[in-house]
Amino acid sequence: MNAEIIAVGSELLLGQIANTNAKFLSKELATIGVNVYFHTVVGDNRNRLKNAVEIAKKRSQFILFTGGLGPTKDDLTKETLAEIVQRDLVMDEESFQSIKAFFKKMNRTMTENNKKQAYVLAGSEVLPNDTGMAPGMVFTQDDITYMLLPGPPSELEPMFKKYGKRSLLKRLGKCETIESKVLRFFGIGESTLEKEIEDLIDRQSNPTIAPLASDGEVTLRLTVKHSDKRKRKELIDQLEGEILSRVGPYFYGYDETTIIDEMAKLLQVKSKRIAAAESLTGGLFQEELTSIPGASHWFQGGIVSYTNEVKIGFLGVQKETIDTFGAVSKQCAMEMAENVRKKMKAHIGISFTGVAGPSPLEGKNPGTVYIGISIDGKTPEAFEYHLFGNRQTIRRRAVKVGAWEVLKQLKAE
Amino acid sequence: MNAEIIAVGSELLLGQIANTNAKFLSKELATIGVNVYFHTVVGDNRNRLKNAVEIAKKRSQFILFTGGLGPTKDDLTKETLAEIVQRDLVMDEESFQSIKAFFKKMNRTMTENNKKQAYVLAGSEVLPNDTGMAPGMVFTQDDITYMLLPGPPSELEPMFKKYGKRSLLKRLGKCETIESKVLRFFGIGESTLEKEIEDLIDRQSNPTIAPLASDGEVTLRLTVKHSDKRKRKELIDQLEGEILSRVGPYFYGYDETTIIDEMAKLLQVKSKRIAAAESLTGGLFQEELTSIPGASHWFQGGIVSYTNEVKIGFLGVQKETIDTFGAVSKQCAMEMAENVRKKMKAHIGISFTGVAGPSPLEGKNPGTVYIGISIDGKTPEAFEYHLFGNRQTIRRRAVKVGAWEVLKQLKAE
Repeated sequence: MNAEIIAVGSELLLGQIANTNAKFLSKELATIGVNVYFHTVVGDNRNRLKNAVEIAKKRSQFILFTGGLGPTKDDLTKETLAEIVQRDLVMDEESFQSIKAFFKKMNRTMTENNKKQAYVLAGSEVLPNDTGMAPGMVFTQDDITYMLLPGPPSELEPMFKKYGKRSLLKRLGKCETIESKVLRFFGIGESTLEKEIEDLIDRQSNPTIAPLASDGEVTLRLTVKHSDKRKRKELIDQLEGEILSRVGPYFYGYDETTIIDEMAKLLQVKSKRIAAAESLTGGLFQEELTSIPGASHWFQGGIVSYTNEVKIGFLGVQKETIDTFGAVSKQCAMEMAENVRKKMKAHIGISFTGVAGPSPLEGKNPGTVYIGISIDGKTPEAFEYHLFGNRQTIRRRAVKVGAWEVLKQLKAE
Repeated sequence: MNAEIIAVGSELLLGQIANTNAKFLSKELATIGVNVYFHTVVGDNRNRLKNAVEIAKKRSQFILFTGGLGPTKDDLTKETLAEIVQRDLVMDEESFQSIKAFFKKMNRTMTENNKKQAYVLAGSEVLPNDTGMAPGMVFTQDDITYMLLPGPPSELEPMFKKYGKRSLLKRLGKCETIESKVLRFFGIGESTLEKEIEDLIDRQSNPTIAPLASDGEVTLRLTVKHSDKRKRKELIDQLEGEILSRVGPYFYGYDETTIIDEMAKLLQVKSKRIAAAESLTGGLFQEELTSIPGASHWFQGGIVSYTNEVKIGFLGVQKETIDTFGAVSKQCAMEMAENVRKKMKAHIGISFTGVAGPSPLEGKNPGTVYIGISIDGKTPEAFEYHLFGNRQTIRRRAVKVGAWEVLKQLKAE
């Protein structure tokens, strides 16, 4: 089954937003073995949209539309498609009730044009919109399956995950025969990892192994096909066991998790609280921790000690340490971690000092990073890293290596 | 001139990356008055790429290719296009020398397949690659202009800005005749702003006015066409003056600036230092400040007081304040701002407390936000906001309204 994603929206052609919906859907479709061969973006224009659909009909068996389902005159995806496939638009009572309920919840009066959103293509399966108003829809005609999804990612993503994917698998007749699992690694390069499991990659068949490197991490996607659920699990478990027996120390989690998530989980499970002192990363580590709901259960608080004045006068780093070794040093990192842990009454203190760039600092090049870790009852430690990239990349990577060092300590405890 | 962007790369169809090149180029093309009508993404596959080019030739006068210019067998953009337009690939000596120099600089030996990158379509204008190896190229044939650019954004963006845009303007014969300027507003809704300048929008011709709302902000893009540079400036200045006389208090800057950037500039100019205490935003405000190089000139440091224990024991908020009014209150926000300013010895203290969600807190709904501001020598103030969105959106918007409040104070000083 060859798939094509048609995004409808002039805001994409004006460069106001990137087509992240196509990225999301392509990734989802790849996991269920659907090949996406084309992405097309077309504006809010009936003729050009028609033209795009006619082209897609000739080369694709599955056409996914994103956007153009809203209440305004600009929104014309289903109206245009209705002409092409010669189906009427009919009112979907359930969607209408849910739109009315949406307005009631928001304490606003529903304007007449919002009713338009409740109309769907006759005979299509309706995909409920749990996070917005416009419903999605799916239908198959002349061996082509059409799926229409709303444009906002906050509506499209949950709709596809909860309803769209299932409907598609059913239509493909391969419901529940394909499964995949992603193994995530940190602290090892892609080529080194691939070398360690070269023989497994060479003789892969079922499950298949797909490595991918991005943003300093490496992942392996294992994909298995089998009609029996238990057999699928068995095949995946067996391969996973073999892989982890070789590169287990670099493994940190499955699927969509992150190193920060895994660190947070372990802090929660072990009932430990963490505090942070950040120079280099300027609050980014703490921001990532607190973006997780419920962070207050394991995150205590912290300090952004951006200037030496704050490091010394407020965080209590000794002036001699900075005079002798510099603020960008293992010694300073250790004192920062130790002091923030004590001041915040936490179990673990972590610190970040280094050079984000673009200019060198204290004679050290951009990318030089020191992570300090202080654990209650232990001698503080510091780890030196040399990271590549621009200012933002170095800061982002520093946060990851920091979480990775904490994770290793927590696992060892 | 109707333009189409064809991105070549299977990584896009697998959902590994989003097509940010199309966003970048579309935005650039919009500013010079080129209408982009289609984006197409196709994999590293000769037949499907051919198919896409044949379709594009029928509907577009300007076809931009991104990606597929590298050294591997997968890279086949110019090879495929060479077949279609029946031009040879010829070695470009200058590009070859620059590729050799690139390897020398990296201290690596050039492998034979890298030579492939120095071949260009015969008779095309070569666009130098200042940040990588593969050169770009442009040529016009049968009234269609073709431009080929490398895939990595770090190569494509500078190449287009420095060489591609100029070549295109020359080919369009409208070199330097179009100019645009973006006015940015905050604290006013799109519909209210549009209403205030409705008559100007209705009778727009030259310059044109394009409003856009995104992420809590509204922008107006003014675009003028005229062969005389002074006349262009005069026309823009006149319209800008008229607009600002009506909605000036909501205006904060031009083009690609942000509220945080404007606040930073003003802090620097006025030689004031800021410190922050964050609960709700968990470090995001400070992270955004420190992502600006040179932030240490005007940013002192701060505290992430995520728990009440830290707010009271460390930041010095009075226990009675929290017991009486709650941590999510104007009173707490004012004390947080005042205390962090004093402790960090800064001129301005700002604080963020509120409910990011998903659950209510202290009987207050997600989106309830208090911004405290304390300025040396003045009584602290607090501002209440009710923001919409999910946890991340609320936090991001809170940072913006915080910077907006500081900006207003600095302007009034």
